[in-house]
Amino acid sequence: MIEPTLADIRQAAECIQPYAHRTPVLTCASFDRQVGAHVFLKCENLQRVGAFKFRGACNAVFSLSVEEAKRGVATHSSGNHAQALALAARLRGIPAYIVMPRTAPAVKTAAVRGYGGQITYCEPTLEARETTLAEVVRQTHATVVHPYDNPRVIAGQGTAALELLTDVPDLNLVMTPVGGGGLLSGTSITVSALSPKTRVIAAEPAGADDAYRSLQAGRILPSVHPQTIADGLLTSLSPRTFSIIQAHVERIVTVSEESIIAAMRFIWERAKIVIEPSAAVPLAALWDGSFEFAGQRIGVILSGGNVSLDKLPWQEKRREIS
Amino acid sequence: MIEPTLADIRQAAECIQPYAHRTPVLTCASFDRQVGAHVFLKCENLQRVGAFKFRGACNAVFSLSVEEAKRGVATHSSGNHAQALALAARLRGIPAYIVMPRTAPAVKTAAVRGYGGQITYCEPTLEARETTLAEVVRQTHATVVHPYDNPRVIAGQGTAALELLTDVPDLNLVMTPVGGGGLLSGTSITVSALSPKTRVIAAEPAGADDAYRSLQAGRILPSVHPQTIADGLLTSLSPRTFSIIQAHVERIVTVSEESIIAAMRFIWERAKIVIEPSAAVPLAALWDGSFEFAGQRIGVILSGGNVSLDKLPWQEKRREIS
Repeated sequence: MIEPTLADIRQAAECIQPYAHRTPVLTCASFDRQVGAHVFLKCENLQRVGAFKFRGACNAVFSLSVEEAKRGVATHSSGNHAQALALAARLRGIPAYIVMPRTAPAVKTAAVRGYGGQITYCEPTLEARETTLAEVVRQTHATVVHPYDNPRVIAGQGTAALELLTDVPDLNLVMTPVGGGGLLSGTSITVSALSPKTRVIAAEPAGADDAYRSLQAGRILPSVHPQTIADGLLTSLSPRTFSIIQAHVERIVTVSEESIIAAMRFIWERAKIVIEPSAAVPLAALWDGSFEFAGQRIGVILSGGNVSLDKLPWQEKRREIS
Repeated sequence: MIEPTLADIRQAAECIQPYAHRTPVLTCASFDRQVGAHVFLKCENLQRVGAFKFRGACNAVFSLSVEEAKRGVATHSSGNHAQALALAARLRGIPAYIVMPRTAPAVKTAAVRGYGGQITYCEPTLEARETTLAEVVRQTHATVVHPYDNPRVIAGQGTAALELLTDVPDLNLVMTPVGGGGLLSGTSITVSALSPKTRVIAAEPAGADDAYRSLQAGRILPSVHPQTIADGLLTSLSPRTFSIIQAHVERIVTVSEESIIAAMRFIWERAKIVIEPSAAVPLAALWDGSFEFAGQRIGVILSGGNVSLDKLPWQEKRREIS
């Protein structure tokens, strides 16, 4: 089981540099006051396709040999990874075959198609997705790029933390959300290698707390019927990401749906950036103040900004936000 | 009538540097494709208080002598300038007296108070605002800081273009919205001095087109019953801003409400930043393609991001956005 190293992450940074945005790090004085710390927002919502996922997909696509590349890449995904892989493939001029459930929202299929991805629809079950993907690969000989259980993808995701540590010295703590663990794995490898005194803590919705429970139990406990507005965090860890996270991550904290929405709205209102619920999850942990960080310098990797603008979470139940 | 020079703007940049954000310049490949140009977004929505106004207010406040400063600053405003002046005054540790109509939305008075501003309420007429401000000044001897008809304020606003030209060379065109003309004046002084071949074009809502008509007529025509969603652009030019704009601005183009909302939504969706309708006005001009700019490198100063998140413009009439 290959785990990427800092050298792999540095190589990924060089590989994706011509294609990826070097995203800005923003600060927000009112959020700092709210949580009582100095927070540095690494804005992967401002990354291409609106999510950090572009880094990993781009590194995977541009690391293929010429022969492999010709046959294209494939994945099953209805989320940000599908768009990221489609765009990365278009930038290299190769086909991207994306298996999507036929129930996927039109806005998501349109986005994948907009980036040039070739969609194959399947029934909305994991089994159908996997058999359909296998059939696509049988026909095309494309290389499957898993959304997180892939060393090149993990190395790509680790480049966001590389930029963050370059731009902001002396961080006490770096935070990410955790779903399948690709972003957290890459981040924790970068941080532990470059700045061993900096803690790495991840946040997870209480309604999808499989990574939290897995770390407690010392073995992977799958995500069962996860329920959260943070729809980027529904997946479970893989053995590879679990092993990396066990080695390098101090702890995982869980947050409520209310805190996710409150933190998300606060950032839209005060920091003036569009973040998706998954990106608000680490901010919600700070919002709740459920662990010790007062006065510290905290880097937060905002995972993405892909959200429907037709109906916003705080409009659904008209929650009162403090 | 004092008109600031590039030297004043450079001095303003130094003056505000410890307090203002150096805002990022973002690009958005899908907006570029949409309008057929290379657009560089200077994100003053990510400035403190969420608007470029902080630059001018900060320069005005920190340019006061110690004696003047002690007595504080005053203005009448219910918009971004009120918040900007309150924050700048707090940073210098001096009082800010803000005259606001008693009909001002609670969210705006709360914001001013949050930045430490001392509010005096008045009737919601221009006359009441002016007599109330005069009375406040009589009692406090505070220095009035006009939102745009003030050389220090104009010089401060010109620092955004200074940063933009430093970060992005070889712009063919720089665009801003125009209301009272403070941002446009400062921008046009900077651009004409530093990069004389770069055109400066402003955009204005068709429903509040006093600057457009004034430039056509060769004299200031006041804004009469302006109607636009771009509520930062309701004011009229002053003799000072009119004179500067006449000298340095190539033209003003007008845009429809529909285009403002379409461009605003597109930027939220694809660039993942929160911009207010006024900031979308120059983008709407590009969206409409109503003048010649194909393939050019265009810097757009996004004026601000202060907007209510409870109800968004595209939710009001459920307009269809292409």
